[in-house]
Amino acid sequence: MASTHFATRLANAIRSSGTPLCMGIDPHPAMMPSLFGDVSEAGHPRTIRAISDFTMACLEAARGRVAAIKPQAAFFEAQGPDGMRVLAALGRAAVDSGMLVIMDAKRNDIGSTNAAYAQAWIGHEAPFPSDALTVNTYLGLDTLEPLLARADAVGAGLFVLTRTSNPGAGALQDLDVGGKPLFHNLAEQLAPLATARCDAAGRSALGIVAGATWPDEARALRAILPSAPFLVPGFGAQGAGPADALAGLTRDGDGWQNGLINSTRGLIFPKSAADAGDIASWRDAIDQAISDSCAALASV
Amino acid sequence: MASTHFATRLANAIRSSGTPLCMGIDPHPAMMPSLFGDVSEAGHPRTIRAISDFTMACLEAARGRVAAIKPQAAFFEAQGPDGMRVLAALGRAAVDSGMLVIMDAKRNDIGSTNAAYAQAWIGHEAPFPSDALTVNTYLGLDTLEPLLARADAVGAGLFVLTRTSNPGAGALQDLDVGGKPLFHNLAEQLAPLATARCDAAGRSALGIVAGATWPDEARALRAILPSAPFLVPGFGAQGAGPADALAGLTRDGDGWQNGLINSTRGLIFPKSAADAGDIASWRDAIDQAISDSCAALASV
Repeated sequence: MASTHFATRLANAIRSSGTPLCMGIDPHPAMMPSLFGDVSEAGHPRTIRAISDFTMACLEAARGRVAAIKPQAAFFEAQGPDGMRVLAALGRAAVDSGMLVIMDAKRNDIGSTNAAYAQAWIGHEAPFPSDALTVNTYLGLDTLEPLLARADAVGAGLFVLTRTSNPGAGALQDLDVGGKPLFHNLAEQLAPLATARCDAAGRSALGIVAGATWPDEARALRAILPSAPFLVPGFGAQGAGPADALAGLTRDGDGWQNGLINSTRGLIFPKSAADAGDIASWRDAIDQAISDSCAALASV
Repeated sequence: MASTHFATRLANAIRSSGTPLCMGIDPHPAMMPSLFGDVSEAGHPRTIRAISDFTMACLEAARGRVAAIKPQAAFFEAQGPDGMRVLAALGRAAVDSGMLVIMDAKRNDIGSTNAAYAQAWIGHEAPFPSDALTVNTYLGLDTLEPLLARADAVGAGLFVLTRTSNPGAGALQDLDVGGKPLFHNLAEQLAPLATARCDAAGRSALGIVAGATWPDEARALRAILPSAPFLVPGFGAQGAGPADALAGLTRDGDGWQNGLINSTRGLIFPKSAADAGDIASWRDAIDQAISDSCAALASV
């Protein structure tokens, strides 16, 4: 059981790995090196085996080198129920070995149904084990209640979609609400909920997703949510540099705090790994990609 | 392959069943009659068997009596990968028998990841087979593109969360944007996309979720989106009566058009079915619940 506070575990993971870097694990068949096998047919046993081998190899490469992993549910779902079995096994292997797992499933529904999503996705004992889950609150802040109840009970975290990394993020998120963009309003609604679930060091288990491609927005969000961890997608392949990615985090004597900088393609699909002839040279390429990203973040 | 247009299939389903009623299928363990077996342990083979038997029995009861079924992904996910296998089999059995399937999974992500969700959830050939999928566009309208591309290619539909049925729906959806609530702004952004994908009778494959508990909002949305099908949750157990539920639909000589009125607890968990001693008496109770709901909608 993850009985410690999520924010404490997050801070420990950043300190022990020496970086706020998070490895996104998106088993995109079209990007997987041929080394791992034929993935041309969705749901086929050989595709499932290749995706299992690839994602477990990513986890091995991540161990001790990054603060967390963030599996993307969509790519496992695209393989059907057997893909979901791979995701469950990946989450189990990761939490059992002490690696922090952010399940990126962006779940959302009305309250009574969110209780079922909470059961599925939140905590080390869930069928899809995690330390934290990404969620969407367009349906209203009342829908967070069963998710928070579960997260609080098992020492897990939540990351609420607030300002996302995609080019069209502003279509709803930037709409002017009383002189401020909508995502500020959402952050203000989240603020008391974040404040209410801090660890002894004042760090909250309720966080937000704040895309690396919008550094000014991340700084504004940090002012509204001083205690919330930020999950920052968009670093690397999506175009954001290290300074932009770190804009919403804070720094103390131990290094960067209060957030995770996610990179997916830059870490698990570096160009140098695409044509690897064997697992050892693939692993060397991934190790180098992690080192390069850590160094880039440390240079800020 | 579902090569006909989703809106045409929807209209045909409403006409042939004689009702816009949709049966929500949420296998909530705490509500399932003991007749179907012990469901106390999530993911256990006997729980999985009970949920499979129960949801397949719901599908049998729905066949020919309602216009569509709407399985709720959350309750299958809460059972882990084996629960997802039950959902896949339910969807397969339904589409193979010609029953319209709305997968209520409320998926959402940035565009490239939404392509994976599209592969997983949209169309008769998807691992989780459907005629239409519910989606959330808080991330921005650009994120709809890969979902629409897939839906267009396979003759499927989408229902975008616009105005939901929960008590706190307004926390974001009602925020004032230029003198109008946010959900109007979203509907206006969706309007050209809906208009662009109509069948020969002017009915769109791009619809919205418009909760039955907000009839005034549904009428306002119909004015903005004349061609869009409305998926209307909240009828029955959530408190909305038939007139409120039908507020956003239109009527012609063939009856109600342009939408589905979903009922879950009222159809699959009626009080009269809770203590059924055998499958025949359970089925009688469900048949009666369907008849009562159809009659209530027909009385408007």
